[in-house]
Amino acid sequence: MRPVALVAIGALAACQMMTAAAETPADREAEILKTATSLANAGTWDNVGLQFVEDLTTEIGPRLAGSPDEKRARDWAVAELTEMGFANVHVEDFTVPYWKRTHETARVVGASAQPLIITALGGSAPTPEGGLEADIVRFELLADMLAADDVDVAGKIVFIDEYMTRTQTGAGYGLAVAKRAACPKAAAAKGAVACLIRSVGTDHFRRPHTGGIDRRGPDGVAKPMGPIPAAALSAPDGDQLARLLERGPVTVNLDIGVETADAAPSGNVIAEVEGGANKDEIVLLGCHLDSWDLGTGAIDDGAGCGIVVGAAKLIDQLPGKPDRTIRVVLYGSEEIGLFGGDAYARQHADELDKHVLASESDHGASYIWQFQTKFGEGALDYANKIQGVLARYGVAAGDNLAGGGPDIGVLARSGVPVVTPAQDGWDYFDYHHTPDDTFDKIEPDAFRQNVSVYAAFAYIAAESGWDFRKPADPEE
Amino acid sequence: MRPVALVAIGALAACQMMTAAAETPADREAEILKTATSLANAGTWDNVGLQFVEDLTTEIGPRLAGSPDEKRARDWAVAELTEMGFANVHVEDFTVPYWKRTHETARVVGASAQPLIITALGGSAPTPEGGLEADIVRFELLADMLAADDVDVAGKIVFIDEYMTRTQTGAGYGLAVAKRAACPKAAAAKGAVACLIRSVGTDHFRRPHTGGIDRRGPDGVAKPMGPIPAAALSAPDGDQLARLLERGPVTVNLDIGVETADAAPSGNVIAEVEGGANKDEIVLLGCHLDSWDLGTGAIDDGAGCGIVVGAAKLIDQLPGKPDRTIRVVLYGSEEIGLFGGDAYARQHADELDKHVLASESDHGASYIWQFQTKFGEGALDYANKIQGVLARYGVAAGDNLAGGGPDIGVLARSGVPVVTPAQDGWDYFDYHHTPDDTFDKIEPDAFRQNVSVYAAFAYIAAESGWDFRKPADPEE
Repeated sequence: MRPVALVAIGALAACQMMTAAAETPADREAEILKTATSLANAGTWDNVGLQFVEDLTTEIGPRLAGSPDEKRARDWAVAELTEMGFANVHVEDFTVPYWKRTHETARVVGASAQPLIITALGGSAPTPEGGLEADIVRFELLADMLAADDVDVAGKIVFIDEYMTRTQTGAGYGLAVAKRAACPKAAAAKGAVACLIRSVGTDHFRRPHTGGIDRRGPDGVAKPMGPIPAAALSAPDGDQLARLLERGPVTVNLDIGVETADAAPSGNVIAEVEGGANKDEIVLLGCHLDSWDLGTGAIDDGAGCGIVVGAAKLIDQLPGKPDRTIRVVLYGSEEIGLFGGDAYARQHADELDKHVLASESDHGASYIWQFQTKFGEGALDYANKIQGVLARYGVAAGDNLAGGGPDIGVLARSGVPVVTPAQDGWDYFDYHHTPDDTFDKIEPDAFRQNVSVYAAFAYIAAESGWDFRKPADPEE
Repeated sequence: MRPVALVAIGALAACQMMTAAAETPADREAEILKTATSLANAGTWDNVGLQFVEDLTTEIGPRLAGSPDEKRARDWAVAELTEMGFANVHVEDFTVPYWKRTHETARVVGASAQPLIITALGGSAPTPEGGLEADIVRFELLADMLAADDVDVAGKIVFIDEYMTRTQTGAGYGLAVAKRAACPKAAAAKGAVACLIRSVGTDHFRRPHTGGIDRRGPDGVAKPMGPIPAAALSAPDGDQLARLLERGPVTVNLDIGVETADAAPSGNVIAEVEGGANKDEIVLLGCHLDSWDLGTGAIDDGAGCGIVVGAAKLIDQLPGKPDRTIRVVLYGSEEIGLFGGDAYARQHADELDKHVLASESDHGASYIWQFQTKFGEGALDYANKIQGVLARYGVAAGDNLAGGGPDIGVLARSGVPVVTPAQDGWDYFDYHHTPDDTFDKIEPDAFRQNVSVYAAFAYIAAESGWDFRKPADPEE
């Protein structure tokens, strides 16, 4: 399905033509900020980005890293972005260790025989055919399991019942995710036969959250899978298991099947709004194209792709080229360990110093409430000016500690200035990595506010000539 | 786990002793209403009923009609009710046609290949091994499918995309459930190979709602299964299928496995608070013990059982016997066609005229907001007096059109007076018949208000000597 035509191009064009006619630097800056505001206003009624997400999640659906589905998504995105008129649309290939679930069940055996709803964690080892059966040993916290004596864990299925805190920023995730990443290796080292965790999520619904485990081998290199089977219980199933354990020992049969491959094809899809005089300078807008297999990857991260594609398209529809190039990167294989981000940094090592700004949208599609930066100290006034434009869309000023996003973390660490337009994460982890990551969970008005914000700051970054690396003035 | 001891028995005993000492009929009525109020107050801090639901849903879990799990639940309930001190605890057996799912998957095939999340409807026929594959024909309403030409349906999978309306009373269910019941037989008659329906539910989560279909044969007798495979899609999957159909024809592979038996054991569990002088007169408090297999049957209908058991136990803890017998009936096999209710009416045909009042709790555990009756016109003043007690617990007066509840509908139709303490059904159908029908969905304070209401009206009915069949006074 084709994106709908953008309205109000005439108004945008008029603004940009006025920009071109401006004479003093202050006039020119004022006109750039005015055009950015017009772009943001256009974003509030834009459907291009939203249609991109709808089409991706409907026509492709789940896009597991390294899978044929992810390949279908790349092909689809190349065709779509080309038809939308972007420049230099292409795929940059790389390979990833591949893991896919084939079946997953768990059931309590004995007097209270009943099913438990689980989902295998990405990188789970398979169980033997027909499942493995063992007693449960429960720990309230990952730390408790790490501190436990081997004898209390050996031969058992470890159950880490740690909760996640709901926060606006999503900061609860960083804490809660530790149990998911660490359990298999740590429990295996103590002789456990499998790991169960309470889902890393903030909801209380009966569909567990998947997500990756640490599957690096002793050499530090990621393998297709970890040492033992590992799965998440939904929150109600975590409650149930805890209640059963209050009544006595509980034995569980866990049956997980997987397919793996040492190397499977993945890739980053790239599309550009080519710049003018300084087209070798890059404003990078990222998202990730892959998703977990349970949902259709709408909030994680089809929305992010729709937001950056929609924003870039708004800028592309201005009559003149922006001064710098806006590069949209739809990263591959983010979910299993930021493979796309690493590949991009490797493949573009020679031009990282030409990346003047980068940002990635990967936290759903709720309203942006804060504009964080990681700029040189001398560039903070630019942050203030951008936030001045965004303020009317409900975006507050943020700190200068932005990470930018998962796939561009590697760019930030190499000195590329980044911004994080922080989205409200209050209910993001109700759906994250579950079957309920579907298109209906995107609130259109909030999504469009994101398009507005990305279009505005990206345009300013591409047109202003500002150096976001600028160090503090030694005179001050 | 044993129920916790009830507090405040001393206060209740004092009330009842005062009742016994009352002399005039008006005094006696006032004392009965006062004791009922004391019982209701005790209900607001009671844990017996809630513990009953927790234990049932935890230690037994799902209790599919006719299954070994339902048998385990009967055995558990007999032991539990006996230990709680109820009288005449026993099971009344009957048999039911048996149906059980063994597997269920659906996937779109072709260019937009992706899984759809379904659940087989109770009584679905199986598909051939490996599934059946056919094009989808979508109807917005059941009525549209019923009106369709056979040629547009034959050889296809019918998809009925009808929505359900959210209401306080739950009245939307009666309308929406028609598609679930009727689709298989009606679609099969037109040559369809299978039925898919948008779940009968009000949520937008990715776990579909099961429920029974009409599986009566031409002889009007229920069979283990209907004519063709039938399944429900979750609401987001219904959306997805509709979006895909906007883009072109959609082919789906549907794979459903079932086990059936013509006759499987089920039964009603009965326990009594034996009455005094008029112990042959029955106040019946019902619920159903069976559940669908997806959840643990907490709101449907473990809660109902906890409410009536908790209420009866409060009355049982009074120092003297009530005048009439309070009979708790935990019906079996409600979900597949009210088999327990029918069996009870058959097995107790001789004493139905001795049933002075009946009520069944089977609509979750949210607050009761209205007290409906189906009394003789001359007994409506009794309804007012009962509601006067309940008003302080937030219960309004209702009409005299109560149905009483599914399993006791047969009693109501035979002339037994019934009451429906109407529960708020606003979110009941978010969880109903899904895996999310679990203990955590019960709000303890609302549950206890239900215990209060049942204890109050049951006590009044058992102690007052009122004739709820009383016809209108011909003088008036």
